[in-house]
Amino acid sequence: MHQRKMFEHVDLGKRIDEKEYDKVAPEMKNRLGELQRKARDVGMPIIVVFEGWDTVGMGELVNKFILPLDPRGFLVHPISAPNAEESSKPFLWRFFVRIPARGRIAVFDRSWYFRSLARTENGQKVGARQVWREISEFEEMLSQDDYLIMKFFLHISKKEHKRRLEKYHSSDLDRCAISDPELDFFKKYDKMLPAIEEMIERTDREYAPWTIVEAEDNKFATAKILTTTVRMIEYGLSKLEAKNLLMLDSNPLIKGGQMFNSTRGGADLGKSLSQDEYRDKLKKLQCRVGELQCELNINKIPSIVVFEGWDAAGKGGAIQRLTAELNPRGYEVVPVGSPTLEEKAHHYLWRFYLKLPPAGHIRIFDRSWYGRVLVERVEGLCSTEEWKRAYQEINEFEGMLVENGTVLIKIWLEIDQQTQLQRFQEREKDRSKQWKISEEDWRNREKWDFYGRAVDEMLFRTSTNHAPWTVVESNDKYYSRVKTLQTIVQAMESKFLKAKDSK
Amino acid sequence: MHQRKMFEHVDLGKRIDEKEYDKVAPEMKNRLGELQRKARDVGMPIIVVFEGWDTVGMGELVNKFILPLDPRGFLVHPISAPNAEESSKPFLWRFFVRIPARGRIAVFDRSWYFRSLARTENGQKVGARQVWREISEFEEMLSQDDYLIMKFFLHISKKEHKRRLEKYHSSDLDRCAISDPELDFFKKYDKMLPAIEEMIERTDREYAPWTIVEAEDNKFATAKILTTTVRMIEYGLSKLEAKNLLMLDSNPLIKGGQMFNSTRGGADLGKSLSQDEYRDKLKKLQCRVGELQCELNINKIPSIVVFEGWDAAGKGGAIQRLTAELNPRGYEVVPVGSPTLEEKAHHYLWRFYLKLPPAGHIRIFDRSWYGRVLVERVEGLCSTEEWKRAYQEINEFEGMLVENGTVLIKIWLEIDQQTQLQRFQEREKDRSKQWKISEEDWRNREKWDFYGRAVDEMLFRTSTNHAPWTVVESNDKYYSRVKTLQTIVQAMESKFLKAKDSK
Repeated sequence: MHQRKMFEHVDLGKRIDEKEYDKVAPEMKNRLGELQRKARDVGMPIIVVFEGWDTVGMGELVNKFILPLDPRGFLVHPISAPNAEESSKPFLWRFFVRIPARGRIAVFDRSWYFRSLARTENGQKVGARQVWREISEFEEMLSQDDYLIMKFFLHISKKEHKRRLEKYHSSDLDRCAISDPELDFFKKYDKMLPAIEEMIERTDREYAPWTIVEAEDNKFATAKILTTTVRMIEYGLSKLEAKNLLMLDSNPLIKGGQMFNSTRGGADLGKSLSQDEYRDKLKKLQCRVGELQCELNINKIPSIVVFEGWDAAGKGGAIQRLTAELNPRGYEVVPVGSPTLEEKAHHYLWRFYLKLPPAGHIRIFDRSWYGRVLVERVEGLCSTEEWKRAYQEINEFEGMLVENGTVLIKIWLEIDQQTQLQRFQEREKDRSKQWKISEEDWRNREKWDFYGRAVDEMLFRTSTNHAPWTVVESNDKYYSRVKTLQTIVQAMESKFLKAKDSK
Repeated sequence: MHQRKMFEHVDLGKRIDEKEYDKVAPEMKNRLGELQRKARDVGMPIIVVFEGWDTVGMGELVNKFILPLDPRGFLVHPISAPNAEESSKPFLWRFFVRIPARGRIAVFDRSWYFRSLARTENGQKVGARQVWREISEFEEMLSQDDYLIMKFFLHISKKEHKRRLEKYHSSDLDRCAISDPELDFFKKYDKMLPAIEEMIERTDREYAPWTIVEAEDNKFATAKILTTTVRMIEYGLSKLEAKNLLMLDSNPLIKGGQMFNSTRGGADLGKSLSQDEYRDKLKKLQCRVGELQCELNINKIPSIVVFEGWDAAGKGGAIQRLTAELNPRGYEVVPVGSPTLEEKAHHYLWRFYLKLPPAGHIRIFDRSWYGRVLVERVEGLCSTEEWKRAYQEINEFEGMLVENGTVLIKIWLEIDQQTQLQRFQEREKDRSKQWKISEEDWRNREKWDFYGRAVDEMLFRTSTNHAPWTVVESNDKYYSRVKTLQTIVQAMESKFLKAKDSK
């Protein structure tokens, strides 16, 4: 393993003289205000991360940074130790839900980095490396979605660090710093320095670069932060402009869609159950799901059931049967439709992060993030590049959930075209069901083959070991509902088997 | 004090026979589905509250109630003990932020009522009565905003209650009920019965009636809940329809606006400060606000500073001076513009509930809930009835905040028409300030007199003892900023004086 000495080349003696600062700072502040408005106008979201030693006076520097900004366009997120809800979710969850909407700025006063270091400190060194990989994936995903990311590490020498610690101890300042005992590990300068170097090296990417800020002189630090930000935003804006010009040239037609080994292909849609068999099995399975809900709740295991399928394949009915014996305190059905304006303004996975189950709860998704590679792909609501990228993004997202202990069950309800037609016609005849059918359903039906190709590719690319799809033959509703419940019961039960094995 | 015996007239022996249930229930479920869609179409929000003894099997009954509903249109809110954030906020805060948007249904599985009883149980009987008054005001305010509110109390006899408690103890059920130890006080039947009777009596209003549900027989209870809901929604829809017809007849012109004893009238706009005085005083005040932020943070006291004033009166500049020495971990500027679609779909105070400061934090509102009686009144964005009602609603809202320990400071920045004109012209000339001025500003200026009348009435009606307005003479920016900071410092300091006095 090679030597990391990046901090050795940092000249901590840097100062700026008063006159120069008074000349540079107002210019930069004005320019920053202008750039904030430009970024807003073109819809570029900006993430600014501040990290550094515990004695650098971060509050003051962050405040100097935000003062020239228009408060309508940014939000500061102070990050401390996670609360109970945040601890129960994947590591990155609480950061993902705070990403800015398009055209807005999120300033992180401490961030996922400080939390990753807190892990190292707790002896979870391997854990930290895993987290740094996840962080890089997270930042890459955002940058591909045109998020501009800049990261500042506020650095001081060991000598200065020690001097400041002593000064704080002898004054009242410490008490008033709205300080965080979580930062105490930064006090061990020699121990933390190599960890910080490793962190910066592993996460310094072209799409999310680090800037080390010499922070012994407050004015120098402020000037460096302001000029770097101005330069980065200018760069981001020009990159985005170039990309948008390219987009105009690209062909928006639906590409891709070569045939895959369809897991739908083998489905025997003739499978059925008699009413008696159905009633008997259904009742038992419903009670069992109810019991499992209790077990999962006691063990604080979160569960997600994803329902996807053709229109009229029976998603609503299957969900009703699934929830009949559940306790409403512990489950929620999440219907997923077109995103709202607010949701559109974020990364497409953002709205699903907001809906992840709390510990011990079950969230049932009636449609899901797979909309990206189904309806959004087929209807051209996102670019070819975007939906192609989504398979990997979704696999990483689901991997993170499973890693965090979530039971993740994905059901595809398969019917044939003939069955769909019958059901559409029934809905039109039955007054109590007419609201279930619209012009749009008929229009979508005409694109059956396009959707079919998208479904095949989805099943192929996102049937991972940790989160496989189950294709449920659904021409017969009885058979479909029973198999759906069986799938769910098995997945939940095997979670307990695994838990027992590992004990 | 008169005898309360409402439960004596309840016949807990009520049962429904299987056949009748199988006939009634499906009809009611269908009808409920239809009514949900109608309520959605006309935008009527619905609140359903479930309360009752701890052994009534509420989870099952709530689940029976929601199964016929379209999951896209409702959300169940299970209510337990408040978490730390919720405890630090006013009692009703966590319920207010959960009110449904127009056309949606919020189902409360336990609610503010159970929390009010928990207070009685903790020996805070007087506290509970105060809370019931607040609850009635809360429900009345919502009902005036066309929210439909229905409340169910699930009742069983002492004998049955005892039998069920014994049954639970001897089985595994208790463990699996996702149960809440917070409910334990319900176990003391004799003690709680009169408290529940008092609660129901004090909060049973025409606009938010209670229904006592005989819940010993599950099917009877389900049938009664379904039929009551259907009847209530039908009634709510017809009332709303009648109201909308009336609205068409009413005159939408801006009414009211007789002159009030203007507190602006006496303002001496000639007041000013020299640059030297300004610099000297400003710096001291800024440091003092910084110190006070620390003190407030340590004492977990939340603060709100409301800035209102004419366009170009200097709100932005005053806010920048106020925050210059603050720690960004403990303050946030909340810019208030036109409400989003989501915000419009709720009661107008909802978006401000979402932005109340956490314990120890300062939230600075750049414009505020006073928009209701200023821009919304003058531009006709709400009805005359609505803005007239708002004075009292705002006074109650602010009373609740102050009662909860919040430091609430309200600043009106007053300038004259001539000064506004000068500043508008300067903005148009200065390239770096052009973005601050728009056509709309010029249009608003033409309505100076209308706004003036609205401002006078606002200052008159909402300058309460607990939350007075301070009119800051702002033709001179130096004077304005210093007086603003002085006002804030004094208000924060007097909070500590009061705290010391009461010790």
